[in-house]
Amino acid sequence: MKRIYLDNNATTQVDEQVKAVMDPFFCEKYGNPNSLHRFGTEVHPYMREALDQLYAGIHADDEDDIIINSCASEGNNTVIKSEYYRSILSNSKKIRMITSTIEHPAVSEAYRFLEKLGAEVIYLPVNSEGLVDPEALREAIDPDITSLVSIIWANNETGLINPVKEYAEICRENGVKLHLDAVQAVGKIPVNMKQIEADFITFSAHKFHGPKGVGGLYIRKGNSIIPLIHGGEQMAGLRAGTINTPYFIGMGKAMELAVSNLEFEDREVRRLRDKLEDAIVKIKDVEVIGKRELRTPNTILASFRGIEGEAFLWDLNQNGVAASTGSACSSESLESNPTFVAMDIGSDLAHTGIRFSLSRYTTEEEIDYAIKVIHNTVKRLRSISSTKNKEYI
Amino acid sequence: MKRIYLDNNATTQVDEQVKAVMDPFFCEKYGNPNSLHRFGTEVHPYMREALDQLYAGIHADDEDDIIINSCASEGNNTVIKSEYYRSILSNSKKIRMITSTIEHPAVSEAYRFLEKLGAEVIYLPVNSEGLVDPEALREAIDPDITSLVSIIWANNETGLINPVKEYAEICRENGVKLHLDAVQAVGKIPVNMKQIEADFITFSAHKFHGPKGVGGLYIRKGNSIIPLIHGGEQMAGLRAGTINTPYFIGMGKAMELAVSNLEFEDREVRRLRDKLEDAIVKIKDVEVIGKRELRTPNTILASFRGIEGEAFLWDLNQNGVAASTGSACSSESLESNPTFVAMDIGSDLAHTGIRFSLSRYTTEEEIDYAIKVIHNTVKRLRSISSTKNKEYI
Repeated sequence: MKRIYLDNNATTQVDEQVKAVMDPFFCEKYGNPNSLHRFGTEVHPYMREALDQLYAGIHADDEDDIIINSCASEGNNTVIKSEYYRSILSNSKKIRMITSTIEHPAVSEAYRFLEKLGAEVIYLPVNSEGLVDPEALREAIDPDITSLVSIIWANNETGLINPVKEYAEICRENGVKLHLDAVQAVGKIPVNMKQIEADFITFSAHKFHGPKGVGGLYIRKGNSIIPLIHGGEQMAGLRAGTINTPYFIGMGKAMELAVSNLEFEDREVRRLRDKLEDAIVKIKDVEVIGKRELRTPNTILASFRGIEGEAFLWDLNQNGVAASTGSACSSESLESNPTFVAMDIGSDLAHTGIRFSLSRYTTEEEIDYAIKVIHNTVKRLRSISSTKNKEYI
Repeated sequence: MKRIYLDNNATTQVDEQVKAVMDPFFCEKYGNPNSLHRFGTEVHPYMREALDQLYAGIHADDEDDIIINSCASEGNNTVIKSEYYRSILSNSKKIRMITSTIEHPAVSEAYRFLEKLGAEVIYLPVNSEGLVDPEALREAIDPDITSLVSIIWANNETGLINPVKEYAEICRENGVKLHLDAVQAVGKIPVNMKQIEADFITFSAHKFHGPKGVGGLYIRKGNSIIPLIHGGEQMAGLRAGTINTPYFIGMGKAMELAVSNLEFEDREVRRLRDKLEDAIVKIKDVEVIGKRELRTPNTILASFRGIEGEAFLWDLNQNGVAASTGSACSSESLESNPTFVAMDIGSDLAHTGIRFSLSRYTTEEEIDYAIKVIHNTVKRLRSISSTKNKEYI
């Protein structure tokens, strides 16, 4: 049975080199790095190297912080709730928080919770290109009452890359903090914190061939956070919990490899993605969401009119091709694709989205095979679909 | 150089068998278990087996929940903050929360934060045996205004085991929820949730020869939580974030092994601990904290009058023996040992605590060697200590 993995926005294969650097820290160098003895301290040089790799990967300044945590969902919750509690605890007037309608649930659900506690949250819509308009952001900011802006850098479903540099400039001008969910940006496109002056970004190792269950929260110098997980003094008191040394070290290596592959990603992964996309748009009544040049090089979100996404996914899976109807974090739900809703794409298309996301492991042979399977699947499913869709066969 | 690890309350070596069951889930079975395709679903049977191992290990009922998270610090924060927010969101009068003065920082710091937000927190002292007196708990509970009681099952520094069955009965009688931080109990003593009717317990894999960075939150049926990490639908919507499949599966195996070794722990680890303790108490002016029969079988917290814990630790380390001055989570701080403060042990002893914590990997040869090193170290340090301590040489 073929095993063709085109769901790399959901998670990625751990790189063998990442696995190799993690291996000694389970049964041999197993000390708690917060311990003062040899078993603890012998881990420090490896952690320092990993930190160096992370700083270099996102071009962070030495004085910036990178907090190692358990995932980007944790990072997103940390920043968003921190800024809310800071306002509450300081009796600040800054109770307005701004986000968008195309965020990952780890952002949008954190805001929904804070709304219940009393926060005022503005959800910016996207424009016809599927992006959050900088001018809409500028209008929504009232510097006197706005604490935090949180917008996704590259969208997980469409791959669309938001104009984050402009957001950063607007937020700086207004003295408002900016958080970018960079989960789908890191490892796919250049992420340079010297160029993009955001205050916080979140990323997750398993999206760039590192392990699941470890992430990073970048904090620009001059900022701090109220911990989400209070307790011990790990991570300078900003994130309690015994440090997951193997994954910390693995994430560093994964970052180094991802960044060294960015040129390959932009050239070769993009070439294969474009080949797949060219073949998909040749099918009748297919719409790909978002302009190709505005997207990460690995992602296609396509709508096949008249075909339920779940049915499509099932058929692909039966033929050895793994794709997604959208975010894995909500893939068990059958609701309308939230990106489609946000982009105001016709409700007749709401259940028809299929996402293909490649990686540096994807081969030309796999893409050729996937193209065949997709064509056959569309033909088959349209031939058995309800009468009203017959016109699309 | 000898490498004798007597700091197993800080963290433990991952069991080779645990490492083996985790290995395939990095580079081969790397799918996101929330994905609907083969790469996702092929992981499910292994996760189910791990869940079965966890349920069996703590004797949970099928209708209870076990939420997999990133560590016990996260679990403790989740329960404590959840109960606070529930009261706030429901405009409940239940704003009182009860804990003790001998909690791990992941509990006490979570409460300190909630106090800033407006919670009323009662910190129960310990009695002369170092335990939280059930009658003191009964007195502190006003059922009309008390939401949650959170007490440590076995203390991380002393190993002292609290009378949790009595806490559970008192909390049930009063309709108040009970959370037990069971981090140092699981894998060291029997943990049976059919016998101890607590509503929540937290545990952490790396304390019982599983990996660092994964833990469990047990939730008795009829209870729920407000997530600490909002987002996707993982863990029935109670804990967002892509599931760390290798560690989830590894924690299941680690639990199975730990529970199957409980008899060995109670007999053989205890025998070696007692041998070490017998040798320690033979030294002049040494006090071991807490009665032996009230402690977990692997732990000794001893005070060597006239010797700074940090200096002792350093000397032991130079001779290949790894111990601790107390909790690794605060081992970088030089403040008085909080357990000593809570137990009202003389301030002249506040900086003299050394913890030795064994595991099923500890050998007789290691204990024999450690005894020699400890005796020599005490002799040496007392001989060079300040004049006022000369009397203790």
